[in-house]
Amino acid sequence: MKVALAQLNYTIGDIEANKIKIIECVNRAKAEGAELVVFGEQAISGAPAYDLLNKVTFLELCEEALVEIASYCDNIAVLVGLPIQCENRTISAAALIENRKIVRYIGKQTVVSRDEVRHISPSKGCEYVKIAGKKVAVVVGEDILVEQEYGKYADLIINLALTSYSRGVIEKRYEMYRKLAFTKGKDVAYVNHVAGQTDIVYDGSSAAFNSRGEAVVLLNNFEEDFQIWDTNYEYTPLEIPYQNKTVNVYRAIKLGLRDYFVKNGFGQACLGLSGGIDSAVVAALAVEVLGPGNVRVLLMPSQFSSDHSVEDAVALAEKLGIEYETVPITEIYKSTIYAMAPVFGDTPFGVTEENIQARIRGMLMMALSNKYGHILLNTSNKSECAVGYSTLYGDTAGSISIIGDLYKSEVYDLARYINRNGEIIPANTIEKEPSAELRPEQKDTDALPPYDVVDAILYRMIEEGQHREEIINAGFDADAVYKIYKMVLKNEHKRFQFCPVLRMSTRTFGKGRIMPLTNKYGY
Amino acid sequence: MKVALAQLNYTIGDIEANKIKIIECVNRAKAEGAELVVFGEQAISGAPAYDLLNKVTFLELCEEALVEIASYCDNIAVLVGLPIQCENRTISAAALIENRKIVRYIGKQTVVSRDEVRHISPSKGCEYVKIAGKKVAVVVGEDILVEQEYGKYADLIINLALTSYSRGVIEKRYEMYRKLAFTKGKDVAYVNHVAGQTDIVYDGSSAAFNSRGEAVVLLNNFEEDFQIWDTNYEYTPLEIPYQNKTVNVYRAIKLGLRDYFVKNGFGQACLGLSGGIDSAVVAALAVEVLGPGNVRVLLMPSQFSSDHSVEDAVALAEKLGIEYETVPITEIYKSTIYAMAPVFGDTPFGVTEENIQARIRGMLMMALSNKYGHILLNTSNKSECAVGYSTLYGDTAGSISIIGDLYKSEVYDLARYINRNGEIIPANTIEKEPSAELRPEQKDTDALPPYDVVDAILYRMIEEGQHREEIINAGFDADAVYKIYKMVLKNEHKRFQFCPVLRMSTRTFGKGRIMPLTNKYGY
Repeated sequence: MKVALAQLNYTIGDIEANKIKIIECVNRAKAEGAELVVFGEQAISGAPAYDLLNKVTFLELCEEALVEIASYCDNIAVLVGLPIQCENRTISAAALIENRKIVRYIGKQTVVSRDEVRHISPSKGCEYVKIAGKKVAVVVGEDILVEQEYGKYADLIINLALTSYSRGVIEKRYEMYRKLAFTKGKDVAYVNHVAGQTDIVYDGSSAAFNSRGEAVVLLNNFEEDFQIWDTNYEYTPLEIPYQNKTVNVYRAIKLGLRDYFVKNGFGQACLGLSGGIDSAVVAALAVEVLGPGNVRVLLMPSQFSSDHSVEDAVALAEKLGIEYETVPITEIYKSTIYAMAPVFGDTPFGVTEENIQARIRGMLMMALSNKYGHILLNTSNKSECAVGYSTLYGDTAGSISIIGDLYKSEVYDLARYINRNGEIIPANTIEKEPSAELRPEQKDTDALPPYDVVDAILYRMIEEGQHREEIINAGFDADAVYKIYKMVLKNEHKRFQFCPVLRMSTRTFGKGRIMPLTNKYGY
Repeated sequence: MKVALAQLNYTIGDIEANKIKIIECVNRAKAEGAELVVFGEQAISGAPAYDLLNKVTFLELCEEALVEIASYCDNIAVLVGLPIQCENRTISAAALIENRKIVRYIGKQTVVSRDEVRHISPSKGCEYVKIAGKKVAVVVGEDILVEQEYGKYADLIINLALTSYSRGVIEKRYEMYRKLAFTKGKDVAYVNHVAGQTDIVYDGSSAAFNSRGEAVVLLNNFEEDFQIWDTNYEYTPLEIPYQNKTVNVYRAIKLGLRDYFVKNGFGQACLGLSGGIDSAVVAALAVEVLGPGNVRVLLMPSQFSSDHSVEDAVALAEKLGIEYETVPITEIYKSTIYAMAPVFGDTPFGVTEENIQARIRGMLMMALSNKYGHILLNTSNKSECAVGYSTLYGDTAGSISIIGDLYKSEVYDLARYINRNGEIIPANTIEKEPSAELRPEQKDTDALPPYDVVDAILYRMIEEGQHREEIINAGFDADAVYKIYKMVLKNEHKRFQFCPVLRMSTRTFGKGRIMPLTNKYGY
């Protein structure tokens, strides 16, 4: 059987556009002689649609689109995903179309994604259908993870997927399907989405494996793709390509950022350039995605900013060819301190005064954003968010954070990758010691170990869920571990109000990792 | 059988304190001759504990506490809820203790709360046990909602509950249990938590109904309570007390605010007083809960503030007996505009300049908060959040929002209730037309119908989930409905970054109502 695998980029709620894309692929599949064309889970609606999934009109529009898609399906079978209403609940189903008729719905049983539970109800799960003489096990979404005896009921397994990108997931996913094909002795194919949907990136990476567990068709990562898989053809097995973590993160961020702008109809981005590594990486990525004419930056030095910071920021802006303006914050800072003098009395300079600087910068960036409709890109990283080295409403501000799920050391990796063909981010920005420059001679290492050590501890704590004692036993300094643990726990309230963060892990703050704001547990 | 119902206020993660409370009630129940004492679901851990539920140490501490509780349970049976590990997953269970031994765990099957899914796995559900010669159906949490044939297996039904407050829920809950008792012909009792847990309020309201569906024991709303229910005693049926919505909201907010401070170890609150209704209500509630010595306010007039606003704010502060200081923002505003002049050019005064004022106020409040450790109370209401009449990082700022789930008209109701024994909130604040005073002569009604009309439309849209057409057909102006709908949809990004909001409904923004930030669906 010739099966077309259509890995597309859908927009949530743009049912009309999604439908047109699907119909185009149906036509292409017919033209290329396919007997079946497969789309992703919830392709017609786009995903995750959250509470839209519980609106009757929304589900009706999805169904109407399905009916129209069916009218194009002469001489070809189609498996396409959509949410449907079923006994007053919404389920995620694959619709099987044959001879222009919707002949069957196969529902998803395993509803486990935090973005779906409470919006989607479990249905029956995997069903077996006959398509073009072949027995096909149709599996929707995470049902593929459920152990099943496919046995003699199935010649092949087809999975309409919806699985998002996170660090290391692509290789794990390939391996999971490879193993499934091998252990079940069945041909297996899955079709994923490829899209940025606000904070989520779907990476595509759809594939087909033969019954020996060999990859026979591999679709692109992070790009739309369409390929024909002939189950009767004896393919030369493909090698699963090596996945470079930094390259994948780079591509995931670019897709996420691009789609955030395209799908929201946004034109230009803005951000504050400090001369530091974080804003440099965000600016460079924004220019790659949106073009230098669509990125506008402000330099907002205070009395504590070093000359080299301003120089590094200017060098970067000039290298990137973007518009930059310098708006010193010193006078605003002074007028703020002056206005608050009766309240502050003779209290000494401290965190309050540091935060005021960060908040003035946030206010100026939002003013630029409000005035010209530029979209403010947040420039915080995950290490800072974790330990609370970020000012609420200052560093946490933005429309979207594109590096907020990357540890500081990963931001450096990205910077070096961006410079792979020549210096874009100034060498000095990469090499100098990080500093928030909110007080004289401040260094990020004043109160904590160097970032690579902090990151290693944070990674074990947050990504691996290790206890303090496990981390200490692994050889880390006990005082540092205790201190970092405490800092992470007591800064949950800042993360609660953080802007949306492009998810690059399964432990993105606020989404993959949720802690009670009020709790007395300290381990 | 004499059953003690122990409705307590637990703290998430404070397993030691929760354990002590439970042991005290075990001892009291023994002293009062009870044969069984019942606590709420997840009493030992406190709830919702989110990702703490997936920490092994956390679960081990809960189990250790249970073992210690058991050691006090001679001559009494105990049903107490806790999260336990079961085949590498966490389930919510009721532990049955008899003769100082943990004899059985009954797990919860129905995991539907948005705060629990993904943290708790479904277990087996309702089980029947024999306690003091009686057949007892032990039901954990929402399993009580599952249709079950209790039949001859049960003499009575006991539900360890964990159900939070929302508008109208208390009367609905009483009715649900009444009906269950009546239709099944069984005695039914349930024990709830009573607590504020950051944004969630558990209202208590535990009760027992006889097999005719008559209320025989009613525990307090919004307060800890302990009562004995003798299943053999022929009680005079109690009338379900009338639930006044405003009074309940008032009590729920006070409990939520109090526990937020007590459980986090916070001392003093601060907020900005504008002379308007929202900040007046928040200030009055804060003073009732924390005392006048623990509430500090700033008046932050701009060049657009009217004299009466400042007068009303001062009148309120004096009435409440709280410390107030006036920090005009005009100079900070001017220096901001001056610094941004090269960027803004000769663009006219507009939303940008309005937002700058709101953000300066947010910055000053946060500065006060940072300097003295006061906790900033947000003063936005749900109507504003819905239509986006709020400045991100200005009006959205705060540690917690106590009226953010109340529509403007409900805030007025609350104001009148606060004044029930004499004027606390100045009459002028209640009677004058609302205005943000961010530009000359601004009124909230400049662009929208009066608040009561807006609220009615919003209520139908958000709480009832009605479509535009349904609302128009109900007699509302089509243009107004279209406009409000559009405003609600396009301001989701502001709500995403809002501070935690005390939930007074099942459609609290960000928790009970989650929409995709990027989507093209407009109905």
